[in-house]
Amino acid sequence: MAIDRKSLRGKLFITIFGAHTRPGRQFDLILLWLILLSVLTVCLESVPSIRSQYHNILHALEVFFTIVFTIEYFLRLYSHPSPLKYLFSFFGIIDLLAIIPFYLTFLLPAGHFLVTIRILRLLRVFRILKLTSFVHHAHVLKTAIAASLQKIAVFMLTIVALVLIIGTIMYVVEGEQHGFTSIPQSIYWAIVTITTVGYGDLTPKTAVGQVISSIVMIMGYAIIAVPTGIVTVEMSRTQPEKKKSENTECLSCGKSMPVSANYCSHCGHHLHE
Amino acid sequence: MAIDRKSLRGKLFITIFGAHTRPGRQFDLILLWLILLSVLTVCLESVPSIRSQYHNILHALEVFFTIVFTIEYFLRLYSHPSPLKYLFSFFGIIDLLAIIPFYLTFLLPAGHFLVTIRILRLLRVFRILKLTSFVHHAHVLKTAIAASLQKIAVFMLTIVALVLIIGTIMYVVEGEQHGFTSIPQSIYWAIVTITTVGYGDLTPKTAVGQVISSIVMIMGYAIIAVPTGIVTVEMSRTQPEKKKSENTECLSCGKSMPVSANYCSHCGHHLHE
Amino acid sequence: MAIDRKSLRGKLFITIFGAHTRPGRQFDLILLWLILLSVLTVCLESVPSIRSQYHNILHALEVFFTIVFTIEYFLRLYSHPSPLKYLFSFFGIIDLLAIIPFYLTFLLPAGHFLVTIRILRLLRVFRILKLTSFVHHAHVLKTAIAASLQKIAVFMLTIVALVLIIGTIMYVVEGEQHGFTSIPQSIYWAIVTITTVGYGDLTPKTAVGQVISSIVMIMGYAIIAVPTGIVTVEMSRTQPEKKKSENTECLSCGKSMPVSANYCSHCGHHLHE
Amino acid sequence: MAIDRKSLRGKLFITIFGAHTRPGRQFDLILLWLILLSVLTVCLESVPSIRSQYHNILHALEVFFTIVFTIEYFLRLYSHPSPLKYLFSFFGIIDLLAIIPFYLTFLLPAGHFLVTIRILRLLRVFRILKLTSFVHHAHVLKTAIAASLQKIAVFMLTIVALVLIIGTIMYVVEGEQHGFTSIPQSIYWAIVTITTVGYGDLTPKTAVGQVISSIVMIMGYAIIAVPTGIVTVEMSRTQPEKKKSENTECLSCGKSMPVSANYCSHCGHHLHE
Repeated sequence: MAIDRKSLRGKLFITIFGAHTRPGRQFDLILLWLILLSVLTVCLESVPSIRSQYHNILHALEVFFTIVFTIEYFLRLYSHPSPLKYLFSFFGIIDLLAIIPFYLTFLLPAGHFLVTIRILRLLRVFRILKLTSFVHHAHVLKTAIAASLQKIAVFMLTIVALVLIIGTIMYVVEGEQHGFTSIPQSIYWAIVTITTVGYGDLTPKTAVGQVISSIVMIMGYAIIAVPTGIVTVEMSRTQPEKKKSENTECLSCGKSMPVSANYCSHCGHHLHE
Repeated sequence: MAIDRKSLRGKLFITIFGAHTRPGRQFDLILLWLILLSVLTVCLESVPSIRSQYHNILHALEVFFTIVFTIEYFLRLYSHPSPLKYLFSFFGIIDLLAIIPFYLTFLLPAGHFLVTIRILRLLRVFRILKLTSFVHHAHVLKTAIAASLQKIAVFMLTIVALVLIIGTIMYVVEGEQHGFTSIPQSIYWAIVTITTVGYGDLTPKTAVGQVISSIVMIMGYAIIAVPTGIVTVEMSRTQPEKKKSENTECLSCGKSMPVSANYCSHCGHHLHE
Repeated sequence: MAIDRKSLRGKLFITIFGAHTRPGRQFDLILLWLILLSVLTVCLESVPSIRSQYHNILHALEVFFTIVFTIEYFLRLYSHPSPLKYLFSFFGIIDLLAIIPFYLTFLLPAGHFLVTIRILRLLRVFRILKLTSFVHHAHVLKTAIAASLQKIAVFMLTIVALVLIIGTIMYVVEGEQHGFTSIPQSIYWAIVTITTVGYGDLTPKTAVGQVISSIVMIMGYAIIAVPTGIVTVEMSRTQPEKKKSENTECLSCGKSMPVSANYCSHCGHHLHE
Repeated sequence: MAIDRKSLRGKLFITIFGAHTRPGRQFDLILLWLILLSVLTVCLESVPSIRSQYHNILHALEVFFTIVFTIEYFLRLYSHPSPLKYLFSFFGIIDLLAIIPFYLTFLLPAGHFLVTIRILRLLRVFRILKLTSFVHHAHVLKTAIAASLQKIAVFMLTIVALVLIIGTIMYVVEGEQHGFTSIPQSIYWAIVTITTVGYGDLTPKTAVGQVISSIVMIMGYAIIAVPTGIVTVEMSRTQPEKKKSENTECLSCGKSMPVSANYCSHCGHHLHE
């Protein structure tokens, strides 16, 4: 169903969903700040000392944000050409999750953890960014990562297998008296170690355990080269458009040629006449 | 010895060892899930709280998996053209290690740590994956790593020497009163530090020790660039087959040419007629 | 306003601001050492045991450095063609911040933390280095980083969003009893984990928390490949000047050709006659 | 002074210093094992429990290694064409340091830490490796690192400045009550954090401190891309000799050509006749 661009609904659609128009950009900018401020409110509300002191202000802000986002939600629903499609789209669900926890706290008493769902409002930022100049760079990154996804999957699978076997060995070597109480716990230790995070909540105590740990650490240190290598190679492949400014256009066939060429490599036309 | 493909043994061989046929793929898929579930069972069994509560279910599952894998083992042995070769092959031994610990627990009382050998069942996953589309990517990774193995060996050797000398220095500087009780212990600390794992179970307490640690950390931070560089360069070398979809085939000589070319660079045939 | 190079002011300008002349280089070298020594003094002064023991020597040194830097500051102000421009330039402010804390301690009693501003003297080192051979390499690094800044921004934004959502999940999963007292605290944990720092001051205690942590760690381990890939690709692009020593110059058209070439690829002139 | 290759001294020189002859290689192999075993002895001797139990065996081994290395030292001195040059060469000093601590323990009573100097014997391994096939790969690594040394120096300087300023800020923010007792201590914390080591012996306690730490961690996480990029680019530049096995030799002019070429690009000779 096409929308009449001059009707109220059409104007709303352009403002809310479009970013290429002036009112669309302004709407996005205001929304971006509202989202960030509401996320900040959720964060601050979770801090016990702030919650007890500024409870009223934070609650008032939350009511304000929820009302604004609720209005926005219904305007989106109203102005969208096919409201049902919007309702079940990824961002449609995120938009709903951004407002519904607040209303549910009136119904359910134990809404403490429910309200944290509101943090998902942050994801709405990505809808706005989708429409800005960030897109090109995000696309390059995404292409490079997607192209190397299968290689990364092989790599991950090897890591998982490695971590499982190392975890089991350490469970046997160190045993329950040194904190390696179960195989899953040992696997957790192995992941903490191989990724070089190293919390130190579980550490090898026996000599054999320390030798195995050392091998795992050095392995983890060397292994990190693999995903780096994969992504770098893929990235250098997806960015062949070096510096277009250094190219010239053949006047005969229109193909882009490097400035250093004397003849068009496509049609043989003499460049730089 | 050739196997008659239509005999029971031949059909079994195709199903169990082959992956390119429909029953072979189905067999692999079922086996994959059985292996993953049995590994999960081994893991869960090691958790004290789960072991005490669900002991009977876990034991029943273990009996089931062992029986299935035992049948599979004997079917493999029966259907393989040269059973002895299978028996002593890498996967033949893994297959045996996957079932034997269970039977040994009846003979030996202290089989607690023996049963953890069953985790090696996980390695059987790699046999299945060997026959899937993962193979190409695993191969590229393996080639790149193999090609750079010697360089990585030189790198590792330098790390080992570095770690030994740093460990000894720290043993002298920090001494036993700060936890650096022996040179091996100090070497363990040096590895924990240079790989940027940093458990924090051993930390320098003296000013001199902290200065040395700082140098070791920055060294470790810079050194990681070396294996990354090695693997990246090797990887970019082993993947020259850019995007085959963007190539066209010369109708005259059959060579693959980029779509952008007008003439075959091999025989001069005019492409895109 | 031009400066007469032979006047006292002109000579001072060349010595203090210029680095290409002999006295300018000598002035820079002395200043470099004075800055490093004064920074060292500030550092040592903050160590309680050293402060109490060598208080008089450190204070005398500080007075000396401040007097020298004050004289230098006024000489710069005097010799600079436009003193106002210098006064409000980046290095002009840094130069002022390097001396003013000392004088303020006479006026303000609680100058303890004020004196640490003197550490900013270190930044003055960069003015000196700006004028040395380091510049080329710093420039290559800066260009590569600047060119990839937008991609890094996209990457950082994704990290921030990831860290916020992971932090919130962990706040709900682990809860206040395990140290995840608020969402900001959990976000701090998520950053400590995803960057593979891993202090261990906050660690997951529940099984679900450890599973989520494991995923975060492996993510962090893989994600590091992205900025590395970005910078490497950008860096390899900004350094195309391979090895000029291996090139020869065509005697006919003057273009640079590789030594291995027999004919100039630009004009067809026979090289190596 | 030339050495007569057939004299005893000449034969000794070839055996001890040369690696390309059969006896030279055998001598190196034996020496390699002796060095590794003696280093292992030094390590084990430092472990309190092993020292008290196997004191006699370890002492006997140490006497044996010292006698062997002493004989070797004097043979090297005797057979070298210019003994003085050897005496003051890098490896001459290392060889002396490998034996002298043992003799000094008879003279000095407090030789406990002196004997740890013997760990430097390990460096002698590099003399042996210098003469093996490792050399080529070590050379490629060394060239790449050397070529990027200046860029790495700029990078390191920036890190040092960053770490100094961050350390000072944290000293002011966290203060002595949270373990940041002095600026050097805070700088140590900054290095532990920015290199992603993260011991956890010093951690930020205040909210502001945690925010600053988070920024430092993300910076450290992104900054690691820089040395990696530098080394990778340098490494890909120093290894242009792709795969020589895939080349063929032109029968007319002898130049190496890729197998895929039909005509020699140097002289026009038709390959694959």
